[in-house]
Amino acid sequence: MVSPKYHIFVCTSCRINGQQKGFCYSKGAVDLVQRFMEEIDDRDLSGEVMITNTGCFGICDKGPIVVVYPEGVWYGNVTEDDVETIVEQHIEGGLVVESLVI
Amino acid sequence: MVSPKYHIFVCTSCRINGQQKGFCYSKGAVDLVQRFMEEIDDRDLSGEVMITNTGCFGICDKGPIVVVYPEGVWYGNVTEDDVETIVEQHIEGGLVVESLVI
Repeated sequence: MVSPKYHIFVCTSCRINGQQKGFCYSKGAVDLVQRFMEEIDDRDLSGEVMITNTGCFGICDKGPIVVVYPEGVWYGNVTEDDVETIVEQHIEGGLVVESLVI
Repeated sequence: MVSPKYHIFVCTSCRINGQQKGFCYSKGAVDLVQRFMEEIDDRDLSGEVMITNTGCFGICDKGPIVVVYPEGVWYGNVTEDDVETIVEQHIEGGLVVESLVI
C-alpha cells in the first residue's frame, strides 16, 4: 500500500462505541468531509489525496478539526468555505494555510 | 497544536452517517484501539503518541488496518498480539514492522 501524497483527516466525532456525537459532528463536520471529497474530485486529485473521517482529537473547542499528513498540520474552526482554500493552497500549492492553523 | 511524534490511526469502520459497521469493526478493531491505548500508557509514551479511530480506508479485505504517520506506514491484518510489537519496534525503536506491512 503506497501512502497518498496527502492524507486529510476530518474529525466527525466518531466514537468507538458506535455513536457519532460531539463538537465537530455538531458543527457540520460531515458536510466538510463531503465538500473535501467534491473538491478533490473536481480537481482530479483523487489519485494522490485520501480523505478519512475520524474520532475525536481531543481539542473540541477548536473544532471542526482537520489534520493533514504527512506534514502533521492541524487546522481548526474549519468551515465549508475553507475547504477550497485548503485544497488549492495546501494540497495543490504545497503551502500551509497559516490563518487556519491551530 | 504540535503534532505528535507518531500518530496511529486505527480503522474502526466509522461511517459518517453514524453507523459503525464493517470489516475492521467486525474483526475486533475497537479492542485494538484499546490495546494500543493501554500499551502507550504502560510505556509512558502518551506525550509523543496519539491514537485516533477512523472510518474506512477502502482496503477492507486486509483489515484491521492501522496507519502510522508521519511515515505513512500501512499495517494490515493487525491482531491484539501485534500491538505490542508495533509499539515496541516501530514507535519506540523507529523500525517498521515489515511482516505486517501491506
